Amino acid sequence: MKKLINKPENVVKEELEGMALSYAGMIKVNLEPKFVYRADAPVQGKVALISGGGSGHEPMHGGFVGKGMLDAACAGEVFTSPTPDQMLEAAKKVNGGAGILYIVKNYTGDVMNFEMAADLARAEGMKVQNILIDDDVAVKDSLWTAGRRGVGATVIAEKIAGAGAEKGYDLGKVADLCRKVNANGRSMGLALTSCTVPAAGKPTFELGDDEIEMGIGIHGEPGRTRMKIKSADELTEMMALSIIEDGDYSRTVHEWDDKKGDWVDVTLVNKALKEGDQVIAFVNGMGGTPNIELQIIYRKLHEVCGKKGLKIVRNLVGSYITSLEMQGCSITLVRADQEMVELWDAPVKTPGLRWGI
Amino acid sequence: MKKLINKPENVVKEELEGMALSYAGMIKVNLEPKFVYRADAPVQGKVALISGGGSGHEPMHGGFVGKGMLDAACAGEVFTSPTPDQMLEAAKKVNGGAGILYIVKNYTGDVMNFEMAADLARAEGMKVQNILIDDDVAVKDSLWTAGRRGVGATVIAEKIAGAGAEKGYDLGKVADLCRKVNANGRSMGLALTSCTVPAAGKPTFELGDDEIEMGIGIHGEPGRTRMKIKSADELTEMMALSIIEDGDYSRTVHEWDDKKGDWVDVTLVNKALKEGDQVIAFVNGMGGTPNIELQIIYRKLHEVCGKKGLKIVRNLVGSYITSLEMQGCSITLVRADQEMVELWDAPVKTPGLRWGI
Repeated sequence: MKKLINKPENVVKEELEGMALSYAGMIKVNLEPKFVYRADAPVQGKVALISGGGSGHEPMHGGFVGKGMLDAACAGEVFTSPTPDQMLEAAKKVNGGAGILYIVKNYTGDVMNFEMAADLARAEGMKVQNILIDDDVAVKDSLWTAGRRGVGATVIAEKIAGAGAEKGYDLGKVADLCRKVNANGRSMGLALTSCTVPAAGKPTFELGDDEIEMGIGIHGEPGRTRMKIKSADELTEMMALSIIEDGDYSRTVHEWDDKKGDWVDVTLVNKALKEGDQVIAFVNGMGGTPNIELQIIYRKLHEVCGKKGLKIVRNLVGSYITSLEMQGCSITLVRADQEMVELWDAPVKTPGLRWGI
Repeated sequence: MKKLINKPENVVKEELEGMALSYAGMIKVNLEPKFVYRADAPVQGKVALISGGGSGHEPMHGGFVGKGMLDAACAGEVFTSPTPDQMLEAAKKVNGGAGILYIVKNYTGDVMNFEMAADLARAEGMKVQNILIDDDVAVKDSLWTAGRRGVGATVIAEKIAGAGAEKGYDLGKVADLCRKVNANGRSMGLALTSCTVPAAGKPTFELGDDEIEMGIGIHGEPGRTRMKIKSADELTEMMALSIIEDGDYSRTVHEWDDKKGDWVDVTLVNKALKEGDQVIAFVNGMGGTPNIELQIIYRKLHEVCGKKGLKIVRNLVGSYITSLEMQGCSITLVRADQEMVELWDAPVKTPGLRWGI
């Protein structure tokens, strides 16, 4: 294992210490327990958005903390869910009195811990909603997941819901926005190489010199198929069509019902994309992929979307939800209405995304 | 070779086509000859900044085209200098009547071609100055270089000189600013892995499983020494001290003398950093390095600078001048006075750097 680290067990702590220094003024860092929060938190009267998950996906989530996006992000160890006490302490720190929205990628550990944290926060008098992100069309169930995994749509959801909260939307409306992004978002990724978790010291999986894993998870979980590498255009078309030709997807998720005062099962439907839809298109690098390759993928994605009658109204190209140094990429398409586009365009000032401020 | 590309010979063209689509509104792309330019070019009355070099260092330089930074960037093939006709056509496209500043990294091909382009542009009635960037303390001469190589300080120079031009500084003053950044900037890098040039199809060099190259060039040129990997803290300290303890550096460069109407030799001195200096600190990823590692490096750099009495007044952490998918990093320190800091803070809107707009 060749990495620019000190002791594997200190990677997350030292990364957060680095962030506290490099982004001072924008964010602050709490080390025990670990979370990143807005330097100006709590913002009174604003719904507070909190996300989190295993580390190793930077800039997500800590890099999305700041004005117009998240209020706090809880960093677990690499590829390991943060714990409820992190999520609870983050909520206490950023609570502005208008409620807490936990944005949760659909992995079993994260879902369970964020539910527990929500119960704890409610016990302390906060209003809390949890919204799941489960946009990865690659596999139905996965190594660490019941249902689809949460991947690229998380970035879009955090931006759009964050802009809504900044505008003064109440908790119900911010939760609706976040749910809407997820209900309209789909992703598919591939890997050229594995990543190496520092504590493991060896690659998560092995790929031949001419092989790729199509449908890879952001922790190196198996995808749909291992195959010989093809041209960027062919691979882009495969990923894009997996998303575009994916049918309606319905599943039951756990959400908090404030009236009932209990968790309830809610059936949600993600409707298939169709000709004429407007989308936000996101080409994401997995951490070890040069920009030059991401632009080649975007070029082809633009063509495929055009042929399928999808209009790209906004785009994001870069490495925003990564898997350490993995080489590979993912594509996310989110059907977006005018409100979502306006919220996408709203000012944001975070380490990872910044415009308009 | 596993890459997300189509034919190696089309990599640069297709990347530029991708950029034209993903950053429409911010930049435009000319394909024959190849250059990226500001969507609103020419800006009348403003000095036009043009840079360029081999591709493979993205987001530099095309990703730094936009309001507050470059007016145009000429993309050569991967790791190959662009040609004088690209530079001339770019100058004609963005010429706003106040002169052209060519910002040139010190590599033999780039220097020669940008001088030829300057002569051609002058023949067409434009005022032109060429400023060299040669900030890499690693080696005195190199594979493709007489004198020190131009690396990380280029990013800082393009930002600060770009802000000066945007403010309405004249050609002499913008050239002075750019020269000043270079005269106060020093860099040092290392590689954990090689990169693979698409047209070559195999790694530029080989490193053992526990080896790094200290002092690496951005094209994979040899550095100072090949050594066993050490901890991030030890490697950061080595890089930082290489920069901080580097003495005064004097060299003779070619600059255009408008009064004499000829190229003249000018001796420039880069004065060693000293206790009490204020610096802009830049930790750069080489393309395949995760953010998490760059933050661990910044954490230690901050400590080393503190111990040496250097005050970091601004910082930049991320992958901005890359070597395709190389894993590794570089550190750049630029001694900065108040004017430079204010220009660093000025609004910028480019694909690669964006704030305040």
